[in-house]
Amino acid sequence: MNTTDPERIQSTEAAANTLRGRRLGIDTQFEAVVFMRKDCAVCRSEGFKAHSRVRLTHGERSIIATLYQVTEDLLAHGEAGLSESAWWRLGLSAGDEITASHPRPLESLSKLRGKVYGRRLDEAALEEILADVVAGRYSDVHLASFITACSARALDHDEMVGLTRAMADAGERLNWPTRPIVDKHSVGGLPGNRTTPIVVAIAAACGLTMPKTSSRAITSPAGTADTMETLAPVELDIAAMRRVVEREGGCVIWGGAVRLSPADDTLIRVERALDLDGEGQLVASVLSKKIAAGATHLILDMPVGPTAKVRSNAAATALSQSLLAVARAFGVVAKVILSDGRQPVGRGIGPALEARDVLAVLQASPDAPLDLRERAVTLAGSLLELAGTVEIGTGVATAADVLASGRAWSKFQRICEAQGGMRTPPLAKQRNPVVANSAGVVSSIDNRRLAKVAKLAGAPDDKAAGVECHVRLGAVIAPGEPLYTVHSETPGELGYALDYVAVNDDIFELAEG
Amino acid sequence: MNTTDPERIQSTEAAANTLRGRRLGIDTQFEAVVFMRKDCAVCRSEGFKAHSRVRLTHGERSIIATLYQVTEDLLAHGEAGLSESAWWRLGLSAGDEITASHPRPLESLSKLRGKVYGRRLDEAALEEILADVVAGRYSDVHLASFITACSARALDHDEMVGLTRAMADAGERLNWPTRPIVDKHSVGGLPGNRTTPIVVAIAAACGLTMPKTSSRAITSPAGTADTMETLAPVELDIAAMRRVVEREGGCVIWGGAVRLSPADDTLIRVERALDLDGEGQLVASVLSKKIAAGATHLILDMPVGPTAKVRSNAAATALSQSLLAVARAFGVVAKVILSDGRQPVGRGIGPALEARDVLAVLQASPDAPLDLRERAVTLAGSLLELAGTVEIGTGVATAADVLASGRAWSKFQRICEAQGGMRTPPLAKQRNPVVANSAGVVSSIDNRRLAKVAKLAGAPDDKAAGVECHVRLGAVIAPGEPLYTVHSETPGELGYALDYVAVNDDIFELAEG
Repeated sequence: MNTTDPERIQSTEAAANTLRGRRLGIDTQFEAVVFMRKDCAVCRSEGFKAHSRVRLTHGERSIIATLYQVTEDLLAHGEAGLSESAWWRLGLSAGDEITASHPRPLESLSKLRGKVYGRRLDEAALEEILADVVAGRYSDVHLASFITACSARALDHDEMVGLTRAMADAGERLNWPTRPIVDKHSVGGLPGNRTTPIVVAIAAACGLTMPKTSSRAITSPAGTADTMETLAPVELDIAAMRRVVEREGGCVIWGGAVRLSPADDTLIRVERALDLDGEGQLVASVLSKKIAAGATHLILDMPVGPTAKVRSNAAATALSQSLLAVARAFGVVAKVILSDGRQPVGRGIGPALEARDVLAVLQASPDAPLDLRERAVTLAGSLLELAGTVEIGTGVATAADVLASGRAWSKFQRICEAQGGMRTPPLAKQRNPVVANSAGVVSSIDNRRLAKVAKLAGAPDDKAAGVECHVRLGAVIAPGEPLYTVHSETPGELGYALDYVAVNDDIFELAEG
Repeated sequence: MNTTDPERIQSTEAAANTLRGRRLGIDTQFEAVVFMRKDCAVCRSEGFKAHSRVRLTHGERSIIATLYQVTEDLLAHGEAGLSESAWWRLGLSAGDEITASHPRPLESLSKLRGKVYGRRLDEAALEEILADVVAGRYSDVHLASFITACSARALDHDEMVGLTRAMADAGERLNWPTRPIVDKHSVGGLPGNRTTPIVVAIAAACGLTMPKTSSRAITSPAGTADTMETLAPVELDIAAMRRVVEREGGCVIWGGAVRLSPADDTLIRVERALDLDGEGQLVASVLSKKIAAGATHLILDMPVGPTAKVRSNAAATALSQSLLAVARAFGVVAKVILSDGRQPVGRGIGPALEARDVLAVLQASPDAPLDLRERAVTLAGSLLELAGTVEIGTGVATAADVLASGRAWSKFQRICEAQGGMRTPPLAKQRNPVVANSAGVVSSIDNRRLAKVAKLAGAPDDKAAGVECHVRLGAVIAPGEPLYTVHSETPGELGYALDYVAVNDDIFELAEG
């Protein structure tokens, strides 16, 4: 039982470390950065050094920012320079004053360390960690450690339930007046597998309620939200989303804009940099969004193949069990449908190229990719059965009929209009074919390296960038025949992708015919 | 077998993305940062976004920097702003031109991912990872993932040997004309355990060669280099170090300045932010430095206690076995000495406060801390025996005699002079006692939380900051009696430490007497 002089603490708290905020016009994305002079009185009195984490307060708002120190005359005495993200999060106007102080120590880091060394994370620990993540109190170093620990020390069932709940609770929760609320998710890893807009159109055309929120890409060249954005606005808030769903029964919007499971977007950014996406993180990422969105019935599409995200039937079984068990813990009726993951789906890889395939299927074009059409019909059919809309065994036929009749295409156009107006997917400025050196039969396609080509070409940030596949497994190829075309918006990115292609000349493997 | 148009690649490479470098005077420490205008032609043609990793080249030099984009008029067209670290690492002068391009994909990240999912890291993988770390190609996210993975997936013997070798090989290696070359290391976690300067003085006074390189603090309030720096310069290069050792037989310098195992300093910075220091990392950190320094005989001091780094005899045995086995793999004769780690050693915690204890022991002051003296004599005695300088069983008596006779103190003064001149440790401006609320006997002391108080007070960055302990285990305490005093250079840091003390009033636990 030790005490300190209470007056000393009060006088420390009272010392106002006030600086005039100055907007420097520096875009650091998500990361809040503050610039202070090295000789600034606040740095001296608080002992701040470059890379210190600093608590900035303006009125009711408070954020944690990374400090960089300025030695030259970028700033006047008494000024603090702010990155765009820091400026907006503090809600500043020109000339406003801010105070700078030490952030409180992050108690949740001891829970994270415990996990690294093998202790389980209970619900309270996960809530504490997720609250710090959502509030921006974790630096990139902390986020990367959390992602890595949850991949290296696989989460058990209770941890997955806890993480799912903590992630869902950390953002908005949607409630709907009707039941069932249906939803669909593809466990990624298969380029071009863009069935969601088609499934939503079929389900909504059949009278189901499907308020679909989708992610942007994690480690892939396109997420459904990236693809959909080339067809209609996707950054709708909750009120706008409700209006679309009330009118049309369905929507396809970006989940991040409605702050469903907002921690997910922060974690996804770091997962992307690490190319890590562990099972527990994956289950919680998928299900926290569905639970926050109010889903009651859920179809999970899981492609399996040697270069898909799920590589074997054993892995598919394990992941399915985790997903179904966690869904059950939240009262969600779910079903997993395994599919062939040996090659990309459709022709396009990248937001706009995949959107073109989606349009071809919805419009029942003669050259629509058959595989994409078939997958969408299978998933929509299962969803109709799961939700009790049709008899078991008749779902696929019903879905195919809704698509062939044009009802799904009409519904999709109405959804796009309700979301803010239909768009035409852009076409890339730079296009370069990659051709076969020799004759043969296509015997394997490396999804991962093909996705990497699309990413190096600029996808998903550049909507038009990606890869357009011209041949599929089993195709007979002549020397010089184009295998795929790289699409890019800039010569730099095209060159970057083609450099990679030059040293990876076996992405499409040819066997002697 | 696919090919691309070779002319296309060449034309991309030839496109010179040249910008005029401008020194912005922004201190980001280690991290290289480049600022470009959002509307800059290079950003547009290369597709760079905020937070992109960008390769910057000037003449022969090339670095990877993090990009921030500037929206206002901080920069003219055709300019790139550079942080201090980026400016110096590229060796720029005012007006110099630099080129910006995409960095090559980091192949070693796939090895890191493999480790996360349980695959072993072989020597080639570790060399590849460490080469990327030393070259600054890993971002904080990658470094944090590597540290976390090596803590969560404990390294086995071969991985520890591989990591030790890769770390030693990534920097300078010292060779000495004589044998034995003796060395000493304390496995940290015990505040105030600053025996090294005393052991070096005794060993060198006995004619041994002890070219000691020490670390700065990892997660503790002071490393030996931080403490020694308050007594003499420690940032000596290899030539200066050789001169000191040739003249005096010993030195105590900062290892980072001679680039022995330079990856260690990069990793330590992230370990510090995460407060993670796994066994494999610890073994490699300790031994890579000793091996690079050319040590042949090594004493390892390992304090054991509930709040020390090593908490139990079982943990001590496991860690000892790892250290000895890896040392043996490199032909180093090593011995581990376990010691009592239940409370801090000496009185001071923090660089200057610990240096005062060291001086008191070397000067044989009547009020010198007995425990620090005894530990130093034990370690020095073991080292004299291990190196064959004295008969087994006579080491401790010899060491005590060298200390009592003043020969160690003379030698230490000569070493300090040779390193650049002896200094007087500073005293902090702010000092605040923490007193007992009630009477009792000190029954336990929480080393970790006490170290945290010292760190919050500003240690190790502020040399004078830290904690001065007034009582030890078993002391009988009256109400209002000071238990320890917090030393700080700034009111802000003092307040921060005392805020923590206020909610941690049981760091010293008192039992009824």
